[in-house]
Amino acid sequence: MSLSRLAIAMDIGGTNLRYAVVNESATILAKGVTETFEFEGKEAVIRRILDAARTALSWADTKPVAIGLALASPVDPVTGVMQMPPNILSLQGYSPIKDLQDNLDIPVVAANDATLAALGEYKYGIKKSVSNMVYLTISTGVGGGQIIDGKIYNGSRGFAAEWGHLTLDFEGHQCNCGSNGCFETYCSGPAIVRIAEEMLAETALKSSLNKHLGKLTPQKLASAARDGDQFSIEVWDKIGRYLGVALSVILNTLDPDVIVIGGGVSSALDLMMKTAESEVKTRALYPYTNNIPVTTAKLGDDSGLIGAAALAFDNIN
Amino acid sequence: MSLSRLAIAMDIGGTNLRYAVVNESATILAKGVTETFEFEGKEAVIRRILDAARTALSWADTKPVAIGLALASPVDPVTGVMQMPPNILSLQGYSPIKDLQDNLDIPVVAANDATLAALGEYKYGIKKSVSNMVYLTISTGVGGGQIIDGKIYNGSRGFAAEWGHLTLDFEGHQCNCGSNGCFETYCSGPAIVRIAEEMLAETALKSSLNKHLGKLTPQKLASAARDGDQFSIEVWDKIGRYLGVALSVILNTLDPDVIVIGGGVSSALDLMMKTAESEVKTRALYPYTNNIPVTTAKLGDDSGLIGAAALAFDNIN
Repeated sequence: MSLSRLAIAMDIGGTNLRYAVVNESATILAKGVTETFEFEGKEAVIRRILDAARTALSWADTKPVAIGLALASPVDPVTGVMQMPPNILSLQGYSPIKDLQDNLDIPVVAANDATLAALGEYKYGIKKSVSNMVYLTISTGVGGGQIIDGKIYNGSRGFAAEWGHLTLDFEGHQCNCGSNGCFETYCSGPAIVRIAEEMLAETALKSSLNKHLGKLTPQKLASAARDGDQFSIEVWDKIGRYLGVALSVILNTLDPDVIVIGGGVSSALDLMMKTAESEVKTRALYPYTNNIPVTTAKLGDDSGLIGAAALAFDNIN
Repeated sequence: MSLSRLAIAMDIGGTNLRYAVVNESATILAKGVTETFEFEGKEAVIRRILDAARTALSWADTKPVAIGLALASPVDPVTGVMQMPPNILSLQGYSPIKDLQDNLDIPVVAANDATLAALGEYKYGIKKSVSNMVYLTISTGVGGGQIIDGKIYNGSRGFAAEWGHLTLDFEGHQCNCGSNGCFETYCSGPAIVRIAEEMLAETALKSSLNKHLGKLTPQKLASAARDGDQFSIEVWDKIGRYLGVALSVILNTLDPDVIVIGGGVSSALDLMMKTAESEVKTRALYPYTNNIPVTTAKLGDDSGLIGAAALAFDNIN
């Protein structure tokens, strides 16, 4: 028996559809996951989204107030239309809002998944009250979301907070997005491995280490660094400097109260912060003397679901 | 005889103190200017600010509702304190608000000058109604201001919108701010001259042109380009590409309805837009097909005064 109102939260990604019943304290009361099977095409994916929503609704013991959708895509802030979803191309130009509303007779709201993870961390992750927050999720790619004046900020076309595509060097490494030298090409998981391999290839040990190339992962580099491995420590020092350049730009342009960093790579944030902080102190205009305002995310993989639920509650109140 | 309410606007810069009586239609009814004489020290500068305010007040035929101050400094959003003003160092840590209020018995509000220029352009320059706008002023340095959801956005510490210190290449040219490769080191007036001279030095004509080095100005390069001079056209093409990288980052992270460009260099914006637009179409995630949302500022040197007046009226309503 729920004491608070309920929302349905769905996280619609290129690999998985995650769905949950969430209460107003951001407790996930029940959750499930199914594969997106994007290759089956638009109609099949839409059917699977509807089925997942029906399943989640069946779990709720009181009627949820709304469904909140976290979409792995830039989302038109007015229509909810998915604009160029990089990993669910079959849903390009589609908004799941109307189909869900029409079939399930419940209000539906939607936003970008990283934006909703930002909202989740803002409302339930960080423990202090602030007005402005930037959230970065660093894993296979780098995404972002931002809260301005206490509200999610989507930008005028739904393309704001794409900090992964902040240029760090306009002649840098080719990015998947078509640009060069994006932050994502310096600090994502694959970028960290690429940079570590480049560093290895430069060492005198090159020939004897070649057999290890291709087997590095950010996880291995992090645990080796924690064990005192000098090479791995140097890799994280280098990645931390790149991170610090990006953080400086965020501080110089949005000047948020706090930057929250999530995603798989954030578990190595402590290994990067010394050099990142040093870059920020050199590059940011604000004269930071003590710690810079950066912290790790608290909600883990559930941040998107919790943010989607928060959006659902916000839009009903 | 004024038909609308009046405000006093003051633009307090490192070189000049500008002051005006402005009505609610943003018409400057009277204005004056005096030198800041920063070298005379804090007390003298404060006295001069008070004198200028008194003069402006004496011009008004009805009592102005407030004084709005445009300060050449990051401004603490709560206290109005000037934080590290690069060209008025004697006022570091000082807020002119209390002295003006106490001496002149009138409400006083203050913000950063580029932020208020943004507000001026937002309310009275661009002719369409938008929610989100970024303003860049490109002259000796590069400053910025931004309007988010219809309001000026100062950031949590008053250090937002410092787009001049957006990194374009983290190993680039040394910037006055202590960082490297800032946008300002690619597109400010002095940067344009430096880059043009570097390009000249690379040409086969180097020896015969050396005598001209040091005599280039952005104005000369612009008029030569308009006269069809191939070298000058190439300079602007190159500067336009740098500008395009910066515009792409603004679009990828704030996604404003429009980017408004003012400052002396903006008079050459047409010469830069072809290459800038091409960079944006390569680097921005939003699929711009026609024109990119960039326009020149309309209010010229008065934008700071008009924005300061707008702030004064906004805070009274």
